[in-house]
Amino acid sequence: MEAKPNILLLNGPNLNLLGLREPEIYGHQTLTDVVQSLDAQAADLGVQLTHLQSNAEHELIEAIHKARGKVDFIIINPAAFTHTSVAIRDALLGVAIPFIEIHLSNVHARETFRHHSYLSDVAEGVICGFGTQGYEFALQAACRRLLPNS
Amino acid sequence: MEAKPNILLLNGPNLNLLGLREPEIYGHQTLTDVVQSLDAQAADLGVQLTHLQSNAEHELIEAIHKARGKVDFIIINPAAFTHTSVAIRDALLGVAIPFIEIHLSNVHARETFRHHSYLSDVAEGVICGFGTQGYEFALQAACRRLLPNS
Amino acid sequence: MEAKPNILLLNGPNLNLLGLREPEIYGHQTLTDVVQSLDAQAADLGVQLTHLQSNAEHELIEAIHKARGKVDFIIINPAAFTHTSVAIRDALLGVAIPFIEIHLSNVHARETFRHHSYLSDVAEGVICGFGTQGYEFALQAACRRLLPNS
Amino acid sequence: MEAKPNILLLNGPNLNLLGLREPEIYGHQTLTDVVQSLDAQAADLGVQLTHLQSNAEHELIEAIHKARGKVDFIIINPAAFTHTSVAIRDALLGVAIPFIEIHLSNVHARETFRHHSYLSDVAEGVICGFGTQGYEFALQAACRRLLPNS
Amino acid sequence: MEAKPNILLLNGPNLNLLGLREPEIYGHQTLTDVVQSLDAQAADLGVQLTHLQSNAEHELIEAIHKARGKVDFIIINPAAFTHTSVAIRDALLGVAIPFIEIHLSNVHARETFRHHSYLSDVAEGVICGFGTQGYEFALQAACRRLLPNS
Amino acid sequence: MEAKPNILLLNGPNLNLLGLREPEIYGHQTLTDVVQSLDAQAADLGVQLTHLQSNAEHELIEAIHKARGKVDFIIINPAAFTHTSVAIRDALLGVAIPFIEIHLSNVHARETFRHHSYLSDVAEGVICGFGTQGYEFALQAACRRLLPNS
Amino acid sequence: MEAKPNILLLNGPNLNLLGLREPEIYGHQTLTDVVQSLDAQAADLGVQLTHLQSNAEHELIEAIHKARGKVDFIIINPAAFTHTSVAIRDALLGVAIPFIEIHLSNVHARETFRHHSYLSDVAEGVICGFGTQGYEFALQAACRRLLPNS
Amino acid sequence: MEAKPNILLLNGPNLNLLGLREPEIYGHQTLTDVVQSLDAQAADLGVQLTHLQSNAEHELIEAIHKARGKVDFIIINPAAFTHTSVAIRDALLGVAIPFIEIHLSNVHARETFRHHSYLSDVAEGVICGFGTQGYEFALQAACRRLLPNS
Amino acid sequence: MEAKPNILLLNGPNLNLLGLREPEIYGHQTLTDVVQSLDAQAADLGVQLTHLQSNAEHELIEAIHKARGKVDFIIINPAAFTHTSVAIRDALLGVAIPFIEIHLSNVHARETFRHHSYLSDVAEGVICGFGTQGYEFALQAACRRLLPNS
Amino acid sequence: MEAKPNILLLNGPNLNLLGLREPEIYGHQTLTDVVQSLDAQAADLGVQLTHLQSNAEHELIEAIHKARGKVDFIIINPAAFTHTSVAIRDALLGVAIPFIEIHLSNVHARETFRHHSYLSDVAEGVICGFGTQGYEFALQAACRRLLPNS
Amino acid sequence: MEAKPNILLLNGPNLNLLGLREPEIYGHQTLTDVVQSLDAQAADLGVQLTHLQSNAEHELIEAIHKARGKVDFIIINPAAFTHTSVAIRDALLGVAIPFIEIHLSNVHARETFRHHSYLSDVAEGVICGFGTQGYEFALQAACRRLLPNS
Amino acid sequence: MEAKPNILLLNGPNLNLLGLREPEIYGHQTLTDVVQSLDAQAADLGVQLTHLQSNAEHELIEAIHKARGKVDFIIINPAAFTHTSVAIRDALLGVAIPFIEIHLSNVHARETFRHHSYLSDVAEGVICGFGTQGYEFALQAACRRLLPNS
Repeated sequence: MEAKPNILLLNGPNLNLLGLREPEIYGHQTLTDVVQSLDAQAADLGVQLTHLQSNAEHELIEAIHKARGKVDFIIINPAAFTHTSVAIRDALLGVAIPFIEIHLSNVHARETFRHHSYLSDVAEGVICGFGTQGYEFALQAACRRLLPNS
Repeated sequence: MEAKPNILLLNGPNLNLLGLREPEIYGHQTLTDVVQSLDAQAADLGVQLTHLQSNAEHELIEAIHKARGKVDFIIINPAAFTHTSVAIRDALLGVAIPFIEIHLSNVHARETFRHHSYLSDVAEGVICGFGTQGYEFALQAACRRLLPNS
Repeated sequence: MEAKPNILLLNGPNLNLLGLREPEIYGHQTLTDVVQSLDAQAADLGVQLTHLQSNAEHELIEAIHKARGKVDFIIINPAAFTHTSVAIRDALLGVAIPFIEIHLSNVHARETFRHHSYLSDVAEGVICGFGTQGYEFALQAACRRLLPNS
Repeated sequence: MEAKPNILLLNGPNLNLLGLREPEIYGHQTLTDVVQSLDAQAADLGVQLTHLQSNAEHELIEAIHKARGKVDFIIINPAAFTHTSVAIRDALLGVAIPFIEIHLSNVHARETFRHHSYLSDVAEGVICGFGTQGYEFALQAACRRLLPNS
Repeated sequence: MEAKPNILLLNGPNLNLLGLREPEIYGHQTLTDVVQSLDAQAADLGVQLTHLQSNAEHELIEAIHKARGKVDFIIINPAAFTHTSVAIRDALLGVAIPFIEIHLSNVHARETFRHHSYLSDVAEGVICGFGTQGYEFALQAACRRLLPNS
Repeated sequence: MEAKPNILLLNGPNLNLLGLREPEIYGHQTLTDVVQSLDAQAADLGVQLTHLQSNAEHELIEAIHKARGKVDFIIINPAAFTHTSVAIRDALLGVAIPFIEIHLSNVHARETFRHHSYLSDVAEGVICGFGTQGYEFALQAACRRLLPNS
Repeated sequence: MEAKPNILLLNGPNLNLLGLREPEIYGHQTLTDVVQSLDAQAADLGVQLTHLQSNAEHELIEAIHKARGKVDFIIINPAAFTHTSVAIRDALLGVAIPFIEIHLSNVHARETFRHHSYLSDVAEGVICGFGTQGYEFALQAACRRLLPNS
Repeated sequence: MEAKPNILLLNGPNLNLLGLREPEIYGHQTLTDVVQSLDAQAADLGVQLTHLQSNAEHELIEAIHKARGKVDFIIINPAAFTHTSVAIRDALLGVAIPFIEIHLSNVHARETFRHHSYLSDVAEGVICGFGTQGYEFALQAACRRLLPNS
Repeated sequence: MEAKPNILLLNGPNLNLLGLREPEIYGHQTLTDVVQSLDAQAADLGVQLTHLQSNAEHELIEAIHKARGKVDFIIINPAAFTHTSVAIRDALLGVAIPFIEIHLSNVHARETFRHHSYLSDVAEGVICGFGTQGYEFALQAACRRLLPNS
Repeated sequence: MEAKPNILLLNGPNLNLLGLREPEIYGHQTLTDVVQSLDAQAADLGVQLTHLQSNAEHELIEAIHKARGKVDFIIINPAAFTHTSVAIRDALLGVAIPFIEIHLSNVHARETFRHHSYLSDVAEGVICGFGTQGYEFALQAACRRLLPNS
Repeated sequence: MEAKPNILLLNGPNLNLLGLREPEIYGHQTLTDVVQSLDAQAADLGVQLTHLQSNAEHELIEAIHKARGKVDFIIINPAAFTHTSVAIRDALLGVAIPFIEIHLSNVHARETFRHHSYLSDVAEGVICGFGTQGYEFALQAACRRLLPNS
Repeated sequence: MEAKPNILLLNGPNLNLLGLREPEIYGHQTLTDVVQSLDAQAADLGVQLTHLQSNAEHELIEAIHKARGKVDFIIINPAAFTHTSVAIRDALLGVAIPFIEIHLSNVHARETFRHHSYLSDVAEGVICGFGTQGYEFALQAACRRLLPNS
């Protein structure tokens, strides 16, 4: 029996506040709720999901490093690091794992500095503005690439 | 029995070449294939899908005008007009129908002039880089908003 | 008896929604109401008014071309084309008919991209922010130039 | 009997040269001629017009301050101060009297630094390029707002 | 006997005014004169020339689409669309037919916004400032590529 | 007995409206109230306070000139002149009296043009956003420098 | 008896060097000295002060998260993170605790990249250039808001 | 006997401090010294010199207005107004008297904002960096134009 | 018998490497080959061609100076000097000989710094991207102007 | 016997991947290999080398702080932090230890955002593009400064 | 008897055309005329003048190098090299001879690229717009510095 | 016996002043000293070094051209031409010889215009700030590439 593909879900700074912080923008689901629901979907889709949220850039970088040779796809919501972290870009390029960038809110409708991302041009695709449903889309997109015949 | 929500799918210039033009970027499915498949999905999801592709800005504008009072959600792939049409932005604002902007390719990985959109800041959300799967995500997102309890 | 001077009134994209679209910005009068009222004023002022609204750039261009040798003055509300159409600028320069640019809303109080016009520097004058009264001013200004002694 | 609405007409630096300075741009009427003619129109329209021309920014500011609670509308041709005076902007915002900005010449057809105004985005509307007829339009526009039923 | 190569000549907005509009810049020949003369040259050079002038962006796009598989080379004077049409760029890239961009006037000597072209970086070459003789050069250049041994 | 140090408090244009103008931003205290209260504090702190408010740039410049050799420290709220007056900068540099720049509102949260100051880089320090309490801080800071052992 | 309001004082990277590093800019007091002195003042003013200095962005973010529901006001000297951390901005917005931004030196007199702050536009106020006295002002300002009647 | 040509010397803000302020940049001569010496030279050269120094923009503007028809040449050291006054530019253009712009210090070696002048492009010539000798050069240059054969 | 018109062909730095350097961009013909072929064409067209290639800016400038009064038209491929030499621009303006600018490669498809030319706005016309055929076009264009009736 | 000078070698984020990540850019040596080889060279040169690689900005900052008074020279390859860390710049300025900045790849040949460094202007020198040989050069340069007579 | 001070006059590219080229801008005197007249003035003023005009940047650089230790002052009209030559700037800084920059025409009234000079910020002073009289002023200014008591 | 690899050392303008000019920046060694010392090192390393210094761009270009097919590596200190010479870039690209760019001083710590190089992105590597030791590093780096096994 073949091993299931592995997908790493990474969430950047302040996403631990999900469901608490600015609910009119980010909704009422907590991050635990979201991950639980995604785990269930991943099981249905035949993939293995691992999750890490961190407020520390180096923890995200190190999770990406550890993914090398073990993880087939990364889904990342880099949050504020989208706009400031060349180091996460370099980590993703360094391990050469394809990834999708997602944002809960529509970043184009917010402050100008949120319009630039250090990750988008090297991502497979970008999704923003659909709240936690964006994670579901990313999971489906990852699966279509990993399991094209399923 | 309540009427099904109406979703208008709009495709901008050159998308009639889909499946023919630059397949390494846009894939091999034709626009007819894509729309057929989306129609099936729409039926499953309990919504009504109408489609228009046009190379003419004014035809898209007029389709948006006609949607006023009849259509509940718009999914638009504005293609080249993304970067040049204030008139389509104004039409969408004018009829006040919520819409999602999608792009087949990852526009952030292409020419600089493709990084600016006249629609993104007034869209519900933006999806790019997932080929025709992006339309499916947009359809799902539209349904979640139109039929939250389904 | 001398022929009355001819004035061509052009309205750009989305202005057919006038009175329907964003009334808090644009007011409740429809375009038909506005044109009727202007026709009456034109008659009083001793000029002949012709009107075209179009959502298509090429129809506006062709109306300008046809005006060559027949029309003495153009009043144009280019709407969204203000900011994107070099072709309308070229048409106006090509036929060499003097024109006034008008906007219903105060474009300076709106999005930054509305602060640039491809027409203003070659217009006789520019009026913005006075709603449909702006058309009346443009008509009066045109008449003062066409009929200085009246 | 109800009091007539008060309108304050302000003219900025160098406008005392009107009729003398660069007549090919500004025409041959002197400022006195213009104000006299506007006074007559104001009387016809049922409003009271007061006028001040000054080459000193502080005199304009102080005239605006004094207008607080006494004047219903301001018509201002800020001339060179358009492009350099944040203080006049602040004075107008401070007294919260609605105002119209006018320019005799078409500023868009002149030097680049004349394309930016510190007042336009907080004005009711802007008129440029119609010479002294611009004042008449401003007066009419003010009256339509102050005396909507007249 | 082998078929003659096909060359499509496209002319953008306002070029129907050729010979009428701003003759000091564009000369006195009408577009019909120019095309007739180019047809003769094409015959001499052993190629087939087809021509379309349109003021509508979508008609040019559709002419380019129809050229797919039928036309060997495109000569385009995009006129005002040079500076504003990403859609024509996309059409040309979509059909992958080599093309030459020409301008009658020297665009570098005109307004700054005419210095940028959405087509030049994907064109075979660019010619400007030689009036209608530019078309002849483009025709010769196309022939040298299509018929290198002739 | 040694003379008390002299501090000059300067307030720029429109600050005479304090307490009247936009109270939601600037509070309800009038400038007279503020100065009275600061006078009392100055007395407590053992310094002499002189005050001038002016809407005229030249009056502020001349007050700075007169301060030469007589005043030990300047506290200035330049208001709108912050962003436009090189002359006040030059006056302050010319007399070489150390000064603090204060703003009642948080200028960083307002229009972009308020983010640049012609004074900040030559000031001792800058305080903004604390309403009239900012003057008290400036007074304390001045005293700590003038009377370090008190 | 009512609980005292809680104020959190945060100091960013390199501030542990205070008193050691570049004393001609930052003075000779160590951070411990400064905090001790502020503790005493806080006691006098009737508030509770907690302090954290960290060179790690994530520790500051997490301190801000923990403050949610417990801390009434934040005083932050973000040091180098002022110019680079969107994540701290997001943390502060996420917990919705009002805060003051302070800098020991006058950042406007230093390198250009120090003129932009990711925090200022969402701060209550900003103080720079007064050395450690700036903390005292921030404490006083916080108290005036927390204890307006004291 | 023919009247001597009239030259108006204007000095802008802070130049009354000459000889007192920043002597390492501006030298030790007072403005009175400078004017006396220039008067003597003017007499030698056969021209009449009038002088005004003002810290008020409007006084300079009004001096320029009064010069209309009476003064043949203006020598102006606009000081800080160089970089901020469109109104003085307009006054000079309005009276159409040729003028020379001078600066005591080398403005190119100072802050970036001193590199732009609102007067230079309409001046006859510009001199900077020669201290008060610059006035002598300006006087000579004016005389060569007014009295070419002398 | 009337003298033949003189045309000067100038080639800038590194063009002596033609045929050797980057042949995939510049082709395999050497400069000698190209000039020989152009000489033949010039003879056919009834004009006299002189040629100079130099890697030294001053030699090109001096060749332009010597052309004064002797040469009727200049064809120049300024190569790298296109983007850096104001002196060649000034030489061409100084002798007032009309000229055409040509580039072998399509400069618009290369590095950004090659998109600006110090010559284009004062040239008769510009040709790029046609390899050595560009010289032939320039020669034909020059002849049409010099010998309009031939 | 005098103590050997101490040199601290710092490597920033993702450099732990050296030899694994993008070998076509960074070569096949691992970081351990590189450091071992440098240790041997340091011994030969008579200096003591200490090494730290970290993906965490704060660990690098703290290593710099600890170096104060103990380390004579720093060699730093800041990797991605080059472009984003003001805090490392401040740490280096704070401890006032001279340092050399090195990059393995030629940053000038990569993405535009890699062309700016927050460290270069305060470094002794900068080396890029020589792979791990760059460290050897930095070591030699440090030794020449620390041991000028050796 | 003390040696006379030496002044080197340098003229850049195209100035050999003086009197021939664009006389409406540069006047009718040839460079030989100008130098002769300056020689006479230099003799009167008690200084020795040497002159070089060159169209070659390296000849100007080498003249500057040779001036080291022999020349007391340089007067340079760098012409087109003003805007493009860092090497001449470096030569002037390298020999550390004070110099004056002059331009015959008013460069501020010409093309934008003529507004920047690589020399002005390191010059003693700058003179432009006075034709060849500018050289006389430069000579006088040099003498006042070299022979302050004469 | 195999021939030794050839390395060409090129030094740009003003480097003949080395040891004389601004010694606090560039040191006291003359260029002759430096080249002698490098010759000795080259002999030790088993390579042949040729040297040219020139103040003339064209001499450097021609030395590069002559190096084609004869030289294996170029070390270039382009000095001021770094920032202004596209022609040297083109020469280096034209001969396709790998090269290293070096600067004696740290260009990042000097004027802004020295931060851009026309060579860096096509160089093998860049070294700056190490004085003449930089040449030694470049020589070593060249040797490692030419003689990898030595």
